[in-house]
Amino acid sequence: MPEADELDIDLRSDTVTTPSDAMRDAAATAEVGDDVYRDDPSVNELERRAAEAVGTGAALYVPSGTMANQIAVHVHTDPGQELLLERESHIYRWELAGAAKLSGVQTRTIDAGERCVPTPDAVREGLVDEDLHRPGTGLLAVENTHNYRGGVAVPVDRIAAAASVARERDVPVHLDGARVFNAAVALGVDASELVDPVDSVTFCLSKGLGAPVGSILAGDEAFVEDARRVRKLFGGGMRQAGMIAAPALRALDNVDRLADDHANAERLATGLDALDGVDAPAPDTNIVVAHTEDAGIPAESLYAACKDAGVGCVEFDEYATRFTTHLDVDADEVDDAIDRIAGVVDELRA
Amino acid sequence: MPEADELDIDLRSDTVTTPSDAMRDAAATAEVGDDVYRDDPSVNELERRAAEAVGTGAALYVPSGTMANQIAVHVHTDPGQELLLERESHIYRWELAGAAKLSGVQTRTIDAGERCVPTPDAVREGLVDEDLHRPGTGLLAVENTHNYRGGVAVPVDRIAAAASVARERDVPVHLDGARVFNAAVALGVDASELVDPVDSVTFCLSKGLGAPVGSILAGDEAFVEDARRVRKLFGGGMRQAGMIAAPALRALDNVDRLADDHANAERLATGLDALDGVDAPAPDTNIVVAHTEDAGIPAESLYAACKDAGVGCVEFDEYATRFTTHLDVDADEVDDAIDRIAGVVDELRA
Amino acid sequence: MPEADELDIDLRSDTVTTPSDAMRDAAATAEVGDDVYRDDPSVNELERRAAEAVGTGAALYVPSGTMANQIAVHVHTDPGQELLLERESHIYRWELAGAAKLSGVQTRTIDAGERCVPTPDAVREGLVDEDLHRPGTGLLAVENTHNYRGGVAVPVDRIAAAASVARERDVPVHLDGARVFNAAVALGVDASELVDPVDSVTFCLSKGLGAPVGSILAGDEAFVEDARRVRKLFGGGMRQAGMIAAPALRALDNVDRLADDHANAERLATGLDALDGVDAPAPDTNIVVAHTEDAGIPAESLYAACKDAGVGCVEFDEYATRFTTHLDVDADEVDDAIDRIAGVVDELRA
Amino acid sequence: MPEADELDIDLRSDTVTTPSDAMRDAAATAEVGDDVYRDDPSVNELERRAAEAVGTGAALYVPSGTMANQIAVHVHTDPGQELLLERESHIYRWELAGAAKLSGVQTRTIDAGERCVPTPDAVREGLVDEDLHRPGTGLLAVENTHNYRGGVAVPVDRIAAAASVARERDVPVHLDGARVFNAAVALGVDASELVDPVDSVTFCLSKGLGAPVGSILAGDEAFVEDARRVRKLFGGGMRQAGMIAAPALRALDNVDRLADDHANAERLATGLDALDGVDAPAPDTNIVVAHTEDAGIPAESLYAACKDAGVGCVEFDEYATRFTTHLDVDADEVDDAIDRIAGVVDELRA
Repeated sequence: MPEADELDIDLRSDTVTTPSDAMRDAAATAEVGDDVYRDDPSVNELERRAAEAVGTGAALYVPSGTMANQIAVHVHTDPGQELLLERESHIYRWELAGAAKLSGVQTRTIDAGERCVPTPDAVREGLVDEDLHRPGTGLLAVENTHNYRGGVAVPVDRIAAAASVARERDVPVHLDGARVFNAAVALGVDASELVDPVDSVTFCLSKGLGAPVGSILAGDEAFVEDARRVRKLFGGGMRQAGMIAAPALRALDNVDRLADDHANAERLATGLDALDGVDAPAPDTNIVVAHTEDAGIPAESLYAACKDAGVGCVEFDEYATRFTTHLDVDADEVDDAIDRIAGVVDELRA
Repeated sequence: MPEADELDIDLRSDTVTTPSDAMRDAAATAEVGDDVYRDDPSVNELERRAAEAVGTGAALYVPSGTMANQIAVHVHTDPGQELLLERESHIYRWELAGAAKLSGVQTRTIDAGERCVPTPDAVREGLVDEDLHRPGTGLLAVENTHNYRGGVAVPVDRIAAAASVARERDVPVHLDGARVFNAAVALGVDASELVDPVDSVTFCLSKGLGAPVGSILAGDEAFVEDARRVRKLFGGGMRQAGMIAAPALRALDNVDRLADDHANAERLATGLDALDGVDAPAPDTNIVVAHTEDAGIPAESLYAACKDAGVGCVEFDEYATRFTTHLDVDADEVDDAIDRIAGVVDELRA
Repeated sequence: MPEADELDIDLRSDTVTTPSDAMRDAAATAEVGDDVYRDDPSVNELERRAAEAVGTGAALYVPSGTMANQIAVHVHTDPGQELLLERESHIYRWELAGAAKLSGVQTRTIDAGERCVPTPDAVREGLVDEDLHRPGTGLLAVENTHNYRGGVAVPVDRIAAAASVARERDVPVHLDGARVFNAAVALGVDASELVDPVDSVTFCLSKGLGAPVGSILAGDEAFVEDARRVRKLFGGGMRQAGMIAAPALRALDNVDRLADDHANAERLATGLDALDGVDAPAPDTNIVVAHTEDAGIPAESLYAACKDAGVGCVEFDEYATRFTTHLDVDADEVDDAIDRIAGVVDELRA
Repeated sequence: MPEADELDIDLRSDTVTTPSDAMRDAAATAEVGDDVYRDDPSVNELERRAAEAVGTGAALYVPSGTMANQIAVHVHTDPGQELLLERESHIYRWELAGAAKLSGVQTRTIDAGERCVPTPDAVREGLVDEDLHRPGTGLLAVENTHNYRGGVAVPVDRIAAAASVARERDVPVHLDGARVFNAAVALGVDASELVDPVDSVTFCLSKGLGAPVGSILAGDEAFVEDARRVRKLFGGGMRQAGMIAAPALRALDNVDRLADDHANAERLATGLDALDGVDAPAPDTNIVVAHTEDAGIPAESLYAACKDAGVGCVEFDEYATRFTTHLDVDADEVDDAIDRIAGVVDELRA
C-alpha cells in the first residue's frame, strides 16, 4: 500500500498536493499538439505565461525541478568549470551529483549559515578566476526559498548583492526558485523582482501551486533555446504535454493563496514550539522544521511515530524533522496535526 | 502559428496523435499521488499493466522514449565500454549522442541493410572483448519496428538469434521497441514474445497507442530499481503523474487497432508507388517511405510542397520522405492524401 | 622474466627500439629546467624542431601517442559532437574509448577498406550537420601510416581530398601520424606535405625514430596553447623532461634511415610470402602482416610458436600476425627471422 | 628567455631541482625495454623499490603527481559519488577539476584550518551515505605534507584517525603524499607508517627527491592493476621509461637529506620573520610562507620584485608568498636570498 493511504494529514511535502477540479477540467478539455514540434498550444501558452510571471524573455516546461536545475547548469557552464553554491542547496544535496556527472562541473560550496544566501564577500571569496590550474567559476547558483534551512524567504537585496558580485566577473547566476512564489508572497513583492538580478530561474508548478506535474526553466530567449536542446538530450521532450500544461496554467492562479499556507505553517510552528523540548522557529513560508534534540527524540523516531499517528513528515537531520503546509491542508487539520504530534512527543519523551 | 494548424492530414509521425475522449476522461478522474514517493495509484497500475504487456518483471513510466533508451544505456554499461547497435538506429542517430555524453560509452555500429536486424555473424564480429586496449562491449541494442528503415517489423527469431550471440558472451541486450506493438500486430504475435529474448525494452505510449505523454522502460525488478534512480538523475521523476498515466492506461487498449494503421499505410504505399518516378515499397507496419530519386524530386522539395498542400510528412534522406499513419487518420483521409501528393509530384516533376 | 628477454629478434613493434649511445649521451648532458614552468631548454628546442619538421606553427611534447590523440580530440570537439574516423583506426580501436570517456564524443566510423583513407564521398556521407537531434561532426581523424592495415602509406592527395571535404564544412581534421615519417620516406615527400592539409598531427618519437619516450602533438599556436592546458588536465605535465627530450631531438635525425626498415620489411615479406599457405603482401613501410588462413594456422598459434622460437610478433586478427622492422634489427636478423618462422610454419602446418 | 635563467636563487618550487651527475649517469647507462609491455627492467625495479619505500604491495610509475592523483580518484570511485577532501588540497585546487571532468565525481570539502588534516568529527560529518538522492561518498583524500598550508607535516595518528572513520564506513582513503618523505623526515618516522592507514598513496620523485620526471602511485596489487589500465586511458603509458626511471631510483636515496632542506627552510623563515611587517611562521618542512599584509605588500608585488632581484617564489594568496627550499639551494644561498628579499621588502614598504 502506498504510504499516502496511511496518512490522514500529509505534511511530507507540498509536492503531494493533488490537482483541483478546475485543473482536472483543464486537462480534460486541453487543446494539445506535439510539443516536440512546438505544436502544443497549451504548452506554448503556459511557457508564455510563466515567462511573464517571472519577468523573463522566455520559458521552458520540463518534467521536474531537478531537470530544470540540471539543464541550467549544463547550459551555463563548460565541463571543468566550477559551480559555486550554498552548502545545503538542493542542487548540491539532492540531485544525485548531476552537476559532476552530467556536466563535468566541480562544485565549490559556501556555508551561508541560517539565512542561506551567501554574502557578497563569501561570493567574492568563492569565485575562482581561470588560470593555469583551474578553468574558473562558470555559474553561481542561489536558492529561494531555501528548502533545507526551513523555507527561508530571501529578500531581493540579498539576492541582488550576491548576484552582482558574480555578474561583475562575467559569471552568470541561476536561481533555484522551486518555491520562489512562496518567497514573493512572504516578502510582499512580485516574483519578477526576485528574479530580476539573475540570469535564469527554476520554479515548480507541482509544489505549492498545486499542478500535477512539471517545472519551469526561464531566462532570456537565447538561453531557453539552448535549454530546449538540452531538455531533449536529458529525455525531457514530451508529446501532447498540453494535458498537464493546461492544469499547470491554472496553478499560476494559485500564487496569492500561498499566504494561507504560510499562515498555517505559522500556526503549526507555534503549536509545536509550545511542546516541551521541541524547538520550532517561526517560519518565513510553508516549511516548519522541528528540532527535538532537547526532548531527546531523534528525527527517525519522530518520523515513524508521526506516521503511525497518521501525520506525514520528512527527516531532515539527526534531530530535525520537516513539516510542510500546502493547499490540501486547512487550519483545522493543522490543529489536528498539532494534537497528534503532541501525543507522539509525549510518548517518545517518556 | 504552429505547423500542425496548417496541415489537413498530418502524417508527420504517430506522435502527433491527440488523446481520445476516453483518455481525457481518464485524466479528469484519475486517482493520483506523488509518484516520486511511489504514491500514485495510476502510475503504479500503469507500470504493472505495462510489465504484463511485454512480459517483464517490472516497468517504469518515463517522460519520453529517448529517456527510456538513455536510462537503459546508463544502467547496462560502464563508462568506456562499447554500445553495439545498428547504424541507422534511433539511439545512435536521433538522441543527441547521449550514450557518449551522458554515459561515456563508445558506439560501434553494424550496417544491417534493409532488414535492419544484425545477423548473428554481424553481432559476433561487432562484439569486443575486454583487453588491455578496450573495456569491451557493454550492451547490444536492437530496434523493432525499425523507424528509419520504414517501420520494418523484425521477426522474433531474428531478434532472438542476434540477442543470443550477445548473451552467450554475457552482454545484455536492450530492445528499442518504441513501436514494438506495431511489430507484434504485424507479425501476429504477442509483444512479450518479441521481448522475451532481451534484457530490457523501451516502448512508447504516445506514438501509435495514442497516449498524450510518456514511454515505458521495462525489465526485471533489479534493472527497474536501478533505472528508477537514473530517471531521477536525468530529471524524469514526476509528481502526480497519474494525470497522464491514467490516459496512458487506456492507450494499452489500442494495441489491436494498430492493424487499421497498417492497412492504411499499405493503401497509402500502393497509391504512392503507382505515381510515376515514385518508389514506395509495401510497408510492414505504419511507416511509408517514398523514394523520389527517379522522379528527380529531392525530399526537401517534396516535404515543402506537401506542406503547402496540407499534408504533413518528414524528410528522411536526400530523396526519401516518410509518411506515418495513425489513429487520427482514416482511409478516406489516406485517399485524400494520395490525391494531394499525386498533384504535388506532378507539379514538381514538371 | 619480461618477455623481451626471451626474444632474440623482437619484431613486436618499433616501440621496442632502445636508445642509441648518442641518445644516452644526450640524456646525460641535457640542459634541463622545469617544463611545467616552460623552463626546460631541451624541451623547448625539441618542440621548436618538431614543429619545423612537420611544418606547423607550434608543437607540444607529451608522454605518449595516445595522449597526443586524446588531447587533439578534446581540444577540437565539444561533448556530444561526433568524431568521424576510419573503422580500424588506432583512436577508435586501441585507446580505451577515450573519445567517449574523456571527451563525451560519439564516434562514427567509415569502412575505408584496404587502402585505409576515406574517400571524399565517404567523408561527405559521414559528416553530420548540427540539427535538433544531433550536435554535428566536430572532428575528422585520419591515420598515416595506417597501422592495422599494415603500415599503408597514404599519398598526400588522398589525405588532402578527404580533409578538404571536412574543412569546407568547417570541421577540423586531425592526423594520427604516429608513423608519419615512415609515410613521408616511403612516398618520397617531406612530412610537412603530408601534414599540410590537416589542422593538427600526432607523431611518435619512440617508434621507428628510436627515442626512449614521447610523442609530439603539433598544430597552430592557438591549438597548442589549448593542448598544453589539456595535457595538464590529463596529467601529462612533466618536470625536467629535457632528460628525455634531448635524446628525442637526436631521434629527429633518424628520419632518413627509416628507408632501411622499409627495405628490411620488404625482405621479410618476400621471405614469408614464399612460404606455403602464407600470404604476406609487399609492405609500403615497416609493417608486415602475414595471413595464415590458407595454411590453417591461427594467429594465436603462430604468435606462440614464434615466441618459443625467439621471434617476437603481435596477433592482429584470427589469421593475421604483425611483424614490425626497426632500427634494432638488420638484414641478417631478418633472414634469421625468416628461417625461424619458416620452421615454425612447417611444424604448425603438419 | 625562460624564467629560470633570470633567477639566481630559484625558490619557486622543489620541482625545479635538476638531476645530479649520478642521475645523469644512471640515465646514460639504464637498462631499458618497452614498459607498455612491462619489459623495462629499470621501471620494474623502480616500482618494486617504490612500493617497498611506502610499504604497499605494488606501485606504478606515472608522468606526474596530478596523473597519480587523478588515476586514484578514477579507480576508487564511481561517477556520481562524492570525493571528500580538504578545501585547500591540491586535488581540489590545482588539478583543473579533473575529479568532475575525468571521473564525474562531486567534491565535498572540509575546512580543516591551519593544521590541514580533517578531524574524525569533520570526516564523520562529511561522509554521505547512499540514498535516493545521492550515490554516497566514494573516497576520502588527505594530503601530507600539506602544500597550501605551508608544508605542514601531519602526524600519523591524525591521518589514522581521519582514515579510520572513512574505512569503518567502507570508504577508501587516498593520501596525496607528493611530499610524504618530507613529512616522514620531519616527523622522524618511516614513510610506510604514514601510508599504513590509507588505501593508496601518490608521491613525487621530481620534487625534493630530485628526480627529473615522474611520480609513483602505490597501493595493493589489485589497485595497481586497475591503475595501470587507467594510466593507459589517460595517455601515461611510456615506452623506454627506464631512461627516467633509473635516475628516479637514485632519487629514492635522497630521502635522508631532505633534513637539510628543512633546516634551510627554518633558516629562511627566521630571516624573513625578522623583517618588519613580515610574518613567516617556522615551517615543518621545506615550504616557507611569508605573509606581508602588515607591511602592506601584496604577494603580486613581492613576487615581481623578488624576481627582479633574482629570487624565485610563488604567489599563494593576496598577501601570501611561498618560498621552497630544495637540494639545489644551500645555506649560503638561503642567506643571500634573505638579504635580497629584505632589500625588496624595504623598498616596497617605502
